[in-house]
Amino acid sequence: MQNFEFCVPTRIIFGRGKEETIGEVLKNDGIKKVLMVYGSHSIKKNGLYKKVTKSLKESGIAFAEYSGIKSNPRVSDVDKAAELARNEDVDAILGVGGGSVMDSVKGISAASKCNCNVWDFYTQKAEINDAFPIYNIVTLAATASEMNSGFVLTNEETSEKLGNGSPLLYPKVSILNPELTFTVPKDYTAYGAVDIIAHVLEGYLTRTSGPDLMNMYIESIIKTVIKTTEIILINPEDYDARAEFMWSATLALNGSAKTGMDGISFPNHMVEHGISAISDIAHGAGLSIVIPAWMKWYKSKNEDQFKRFAKEIFGKDTIDDGIKSLEDWFRSIESPVRLIDAGITDETLPDITLKSHKQALKWGIDKEYSAEAISEILQFAK
Amino acid sequence: MQNFEFCVPTRIIFGRGKEETIGEVLKNDGIKKVLMVYGSHSIKKNGLYKKVTKSLKESGIAFAEYSGIKSNPRVSDVDKAAELARNEDVDAILGVGGGSVMDSVKGISAASKCNCNVWDFYTQKAEINDAFPIYNIVTLAATASEMNSGFVLTNEETSEKLGNGSPLLYPKVSILNPELTFTVPKDYTAYGAVDIIAHVLEGYLTRTSGPDLMNMYIESIIKTVIKTTEIILINPEDYDARAEFMWSATLALNGSAKTGMDGISFPNHMVEHGISAISDIAHGAGLSIVIPAWMKWYKSKNEDQFKRFAKEIFGKDTIDDGIKSLEDWFRSIESPVRLIDAGITDETLPDITLKSHKQALKWGIDKEYSAEAISEILQFAK
Repeated sequence: MQNFEFCVPTRIIFGRGKEETIGEVLKNDGIKKVLMVYGSHSIKKNGLYKKVTKSLKESGIAFAEYSGIKSNPRVSDVDKAAELARNEDVDAILGVGGGSVMDSVKGISAASKCNCNVWDFYTQKAEINDAFPIYNIVTLAATASEMNSGFVLTNEETSEKLGNGSPLLYPKVSILNPELTFTVPKDYTAYGAVDIIAHVLEGYLTRTSGPDLMNMYIESIIKTVIKTTEIILINPEDYDARAEFMWSATLALNGSAKTGMDGISFPNHMVEHGISAISDIAHGAGLSIVIPAWMKWYKSKNEDQFKRFAKEIFGKDTIDDGIKSLEDWFRSIESPVRLIDAGITDETLPDITLKSHKQALKWGIDKEYSAEAISEILQFAK
Repeated sequence: MQNFEFCVPTRIIFGRGKEETIGEVLKNDGIKKVLMVYGSHSIKKNGLYKKVTKSLKESGIAFAEYSGIKSNPRVSDVDKAAELARNEDVDAILGVGGGSVMDSVKGISAASKCNCNVWDFYTQKAEINDAFPIYNIVTLAATASEMNSGFVLTNEETSEKLGNGSPLLYPKVSILNPELTFTVPKDYTAYGAVDIIAHVLEGYLTRTSGPDLMNMYIESIIKTVIKTTEIILINPEDYDARAEFMWSATLALNGSAKTGMDGISFPNHMVEHGISAISDIAHGAGLSIVIPAWMKWYKSKNEDQFKRFAKEIFGKDTIDDGIKSLEDWFRSIESPVRLIDAGITDETLPDITLKSHKQALKWGIDKEYSAEAISEILQFAK
């Protein structure tokens, strides 16, 4: 078992109607004014905006707003919002949305305190030394950004999609009401499922050693996601399924699913970042293309874990049947499994390879994932 | 799925040799002087005392000491240590030991700030409104006190053993080095195993609803404890087994294994507190007597979970075979399964019943666990 540190100070408030407690939560923490950050105006249509602002007003919390955060969130939005946070003299940032909003909120929180551009944290021009406290109301279960300290942003100018993070960026409070995810459409529910599975599967399939407890923990999460996704796609308002799916998403990437594991890396996320840097594909959709391809390329390097995966998750006796079962399952939930399914054509492969390899360099896995290796993986995705 | 809140801010530092970082950890947190609390002088014999004090001195951390904490820790020790903490003007409490030391440290931390007797928190004469930061170096894996906010103390004068807690009492940092548990003798390793299993089994067998994910999570912990205990009893210095056992202990009672579950209660701990209030039996030894008895008494009330337990943990098809397998396993690790195995005779049963029922009243489960019901359970333990 590998040495590790584990510290996740975020307070999770989970359950029906809990978004209406946000004003009280902020008030009890001594917050006077927040910058409320969200994506599209769908939260105005579905009533969430009204509920949240009502709760803020009732507790005497002033607020400014920044809307328009897109999926694959952009540094330009983060910088504009950070400027607004400074001008409005807020003392906390409140995200209302999914992973894109919550990741943006982390960038905003750090950049507004630092009085710099958020990309400066990526180019080592600035360090994250301080941050505004972060609060979230989660509307999409997938990224676990609500309970971890990382964030991924896309730089439109350089077409780079890169991750960053700091222990200062653990959200103070994240409110998870599964009812808020009832309206997540089928495609984004499926992409979320793929993303959650990827978050635990990468460690599981690349680990060189670690506690068996983590194998079982990860299998529990994958089995739960498969089961609940199938329920949700038929009945989007099944509370228990949405709830279990949502909590699985959080547990998959809050650090608990990798404790004591050695040798783990995230090559599928690495390649997917290359894909979504050059296309507007949803993150989960990119992953369902990359994962089966990477598994076919990598399978001989960690046979025991691949065999275990096939048996435990799909009851299959061979590695290849395990991979096929996962690919078939992605297909069954209508998440793409080939580049062409997402309209990505062969001529973009060199650019994807380049961008992925740049990511591999950043993550220190460029020896195993040379440009040639990435190109080989992408061949399996054609 | 039941609404819940989850927030465990403790920082875990896990791995070989990590106790030697304690001075640095305290220094980085701005601590100048600690009260170091421990049990017997065994930590002087095995070199741990020297390592810890060396680390403190090297980082310029001053310290006072309180030793002599016993198993089933007593309020008198806590009060004396709290007075010492006040007189010595420390700014943190450092526990070096197992559950008894760590529980005492919580009482000391709260009582020294409050300037009251620790029992005042139990009689509602005082409230826990402040606490010194708590640091632990864990030497026994069992109670998860290193990552939760509860503590159990025994009042020698009234022969009461009662639990208390506050979110202020989450340890700030707990250092877990599995090597420090190499010298835990076989009997206490076995009692620890029983305690860990009890912490998750109680919720598992009493739940009325909740996510399947939690069933699988709990089963993973129980399977891990069974497997690693068997390894440790043969080879006490198997690092990986000790490590997995130790981390399972923490996860079993840090709150993560009950998220979203409804209807759970802790009747076995309740009855065991009655037993250990009148005898000096180790907590885990008391539990291995109570659990099979309670299971026989309770089995018809939650058949699905009892059936699932038999199948998933022991591969058995009937509830009774599941209970028998657990009892046999307790016997195989030489933890007692009948009162008489621990020298507890029939004439004490009324007193145990009385004390357990008092506990049931405190926990609000006295309707289900009347004195009569407790007496029936104890009959199965004869």
